[in-house]
Amino acid sequence: MAEQTGNTGQTVNPWKVQGEIVDGKLQAIDYNKLVDQFGTRLIDQPMLDRLEKLTGVRPHVFLRRGLFFSHREFNKILDLYEKGKPFYLYTGRGPSSGSMHVGHMIPFLFCKWLQDVFGAALVIQLTDDEKFIFNPDLKIDDAHKFAIENAKDIMSFGFDPKKTFIFSDLDYMSGPFYKNVIKVAKSITTNQSRATFGFNDSDNIGKLHFVSVQASPSFSNSFPHIFGTANIPCLVPCAIDQDPYFRLTREVAQKLKYHKPSLIHAKFFPALQGPGTKMSASITTSAIFINDTPNQIKNKINKYAFSGGQDTAELHRLHGGNCEVDVSFQYLKFFLEDDEELALIEKQYSSGEMSTGQLKQKCIAVVQELVKGIQEIRATVTDELVDQFMNPTIPKDASMKPCVPQVQELKIE
Amino acid sequence: MAEQTGNTGQTVNPWKVQGEIVDGKLQAIDYNKLVDQFGTRLIDQPMLDRLEKLTGVRPHVFLRRGLFFSHREFNKILDLYEKGKPFYLYTGRGPSSGSMHVGHMIPFLFCKWLQDVFGAALVIQLTDDEKFIFNPDLKIDDAHKFAIENAKDIMSFGFDPKKTFIFSDLDYMSGPFYKNVIKVAKSITTNQSRATFGFNDSDNIGKLHFVSVQASPSFSNSFPHIFGTANIPCLVPCAIDQDPYFRLTREVAQKLKYHKPSLIHAKFFPALQGPGTKMSASITTSAIFINDTPNQIKNKINKYAFSGGQDTAELHRLHGGNCEVDVSFQYLKFFLEDDEELALIEKQYSSGEMSTGQLKQKCIAVVQELVKGIQEIRATVTDELVDQFMNPTIPKDASMKPCVPQVQELKIE
Repeated sequence: MAEQTGNTGQTVNPWKVQGEIVDGKLQAIDYNKLVDQFGTRLIDQPMLDRLEKLTGVRPHVFLRRGLFFSHREFNKILDLYEKGKPFYLYTGRGPSSGSMHVGHMIPFLFCKWLQDVFGAALVIQLTDDEKFIFNPDLKIDDAHKFAIENAKDIMSFGFDPKKTFIFSDLDYMSGPFYKNVIKVAKSITTNQSRATFGFNDSDNIGKLHFVSVQASPSFSNSFPHIFGTANIPCLVPCAIDQDPYFRLTREVAQKLKYHKPSLIHAKFFPALQGPGTKMSASITTSAIFINDTPNQIKNKINKYAFSGGQDTAELHRLHGGNCEVDVSFQYLKFFLEDDEELALIEKQYSSGEMSTGQLKQKCIAVVQELVKGIQEIRATVTDELVDQFMNPTIPKDASMKPCVPQVQELKIE
Repeated sequence: MAEQTGNTGQTVNPWKVQGEIVDGKLQAIDYNKLVDQFGTRLIDQPMLDRLEKLTGVRPHVFLRRGLFFSHREFNKILDLYEKGKPFYLYTGRGPSSGSMHVGHMIPFLFCKWLQDVFGAALVIQLTDDEKFIFNPDLKIDDAHKFAIENAKDIMSFGFDPKKTFIFSDLDYMSGPFYKNVIKVAKSITTNQSRATFGFNDSDNIGKLHFVSVQASPSFSNSFPHIFGTANIPCLVPCAIDQDPYFRLTREVAQKLKYHKPSLIHAKFFPALQGPGTKMSASITTSAIFINDTPNQIKNKINKYAFSGGQDTAELHRLHGGNCEVDVSFQYLKFFLEDDEELALIEKQYSSGEMSTGQLKQKCIAVVQELVKGIQEIRATVTDELVDQFMNPTIPKDASMKPCVPQVQELKIE
């Protein structure tokens, strides 16, 4: 899948994200090249304008700033909404030990906004089976444990438990879900799975088969306790490295006469160390974790956040900093909601008027506040709440009723 | 897997059974060659003597006549029984439309005897998922329907519902069972699955993966409602074409630190048309079905049962008939319990004293009676009985308490 340009083309798949290497230097991900390569569409301003017109609210900061930047048939979702027809949301994560990091939050924060604005039901898949299958050293009970712990983090993002189903594959695999897994598996050849994901003959059969498990939540009849037997179209917000799974899912959906899921893709959340890579749960200094203390956040950003500033204060005042590669600025792009304030910071840092220290200070403050808010809700997560979100015998509300108070808050003045 | 001897070697795998072709002529299956090729062991008289000594009952007619003829570590099962330690039984079937045929009954009849003699619990897997995966034209709901219908036939063989769990994969796939499926899938490479079963790159990923579903009932923790979390060894009676699945299962069991399932293999039940093939549910004239009327049984045997007799009555009285290839005689070998009577028939038919017509008449009578007995019980199968056998929330009795009355009947005088 990597193109040959210069020394090594960029690699983007569910297990590896790495920018091009040109003359031995690691480059940032070229998202335009990626969109061409994958065959997705860029989200443009007319689409955002239409979204605003239909919903009456300003597009989420991630959309405004091009962080959710690419899609497959998101226009169909807008068509449905315009006609008063339902859709639902599906996202997921491969659980890991310890708490989630702020990069992991991105699709979830965006899903919360989508749920609030559209009133759509949401299913969240925790792929503990996948993690076990792909990690030789991981025990299956640990994979499951991580899934439940990650679920508790996810519950802290403010989803409506009456409209949201969070599930571990190991727990939920059964009747209607398994039926779809089998139908999807029948529709994908060994060659297709291997070519799409780059598997070889020594890869275990679980790996080749897993795409059928990740595809199946795209089909609403996997969730009778939410949708009954209705065939409701799906929107999948995810990081763009997951696209191969869903490209294959859309092909299969067609064969199975199911709705093809629409996709909306996010750029990668930069690791503290800088451009060209994504955050990794296994490298603690590469990320800010949801359970980091304010001091840890401060130290990580001060010590490890890759700076786009000049080497000395004098040079910096002269030439200014490079916002594009500066990680603290990139984090503000994700988390500082005020467009004017962000624009001012960009101006001042680029000109050198704002120092690296000051920029980092601002980033620290914003991230501390974000994490603090989540930790407050996280502390209130009880077994009862876990049950409300995860128990598949509890029916959900799949009607497209927005959570009205939030929408009113978001309305443009 | 086929050896090269003469024109074409014999083929034995879960999807095809065919004898050698020598000078264009189809031969019967060479079971000794097969045992060598697969690496199983022949069941010998000392083993049968030990079985008789330990249980106090005469070995089942299938064992006495070498119809269950091969094994992997059946001696370990006898060791367990001798030490008063538990084991359980696992067999299965790929469901097909319509009623089962008498060849399908063989592993089940043998399991019933094993259950009665040893008092072991029994799990019976209906692989509706497999049938769907491997048959391009089969609808998934039909596969499931066949499973339930076949289950009702199986219930008519006299199993103890308190010690027997019959399940459809599509219905039962969940938590503990799925956990084992995933563990097994992680332990089998694409290459292993492909080489064992002869798959190629255009085979769907469901096919490559399915071995993990057939393997998992060999592990007792797939069935907490029967065994709790105990790790109880398993004996798998099956037709010998299923051996590749379990050869791989035994390898995986070792890696997973589970007990390796023991195997006991049956020869193929001959199609009416004769040696070298096995019965097929899709060719109605190749088999006697459980729901055939006495007239249908009579006509099928008279018309289609391959005869080992001579071409004319005179030649027959002169040279006698070939019992080895005569299908009516082979059926009596399976179903006529009286050893002396069978020996007499063999003598008289071989000498020509008994005509083909008389032999067929005897076969018809025996098969009619067998089928009649089953139909009588089949007529009493209610939804309640189905629930007793198939509901996974109903605990089962896994203690090794034999069903005493039957054992007393079977005791040698």
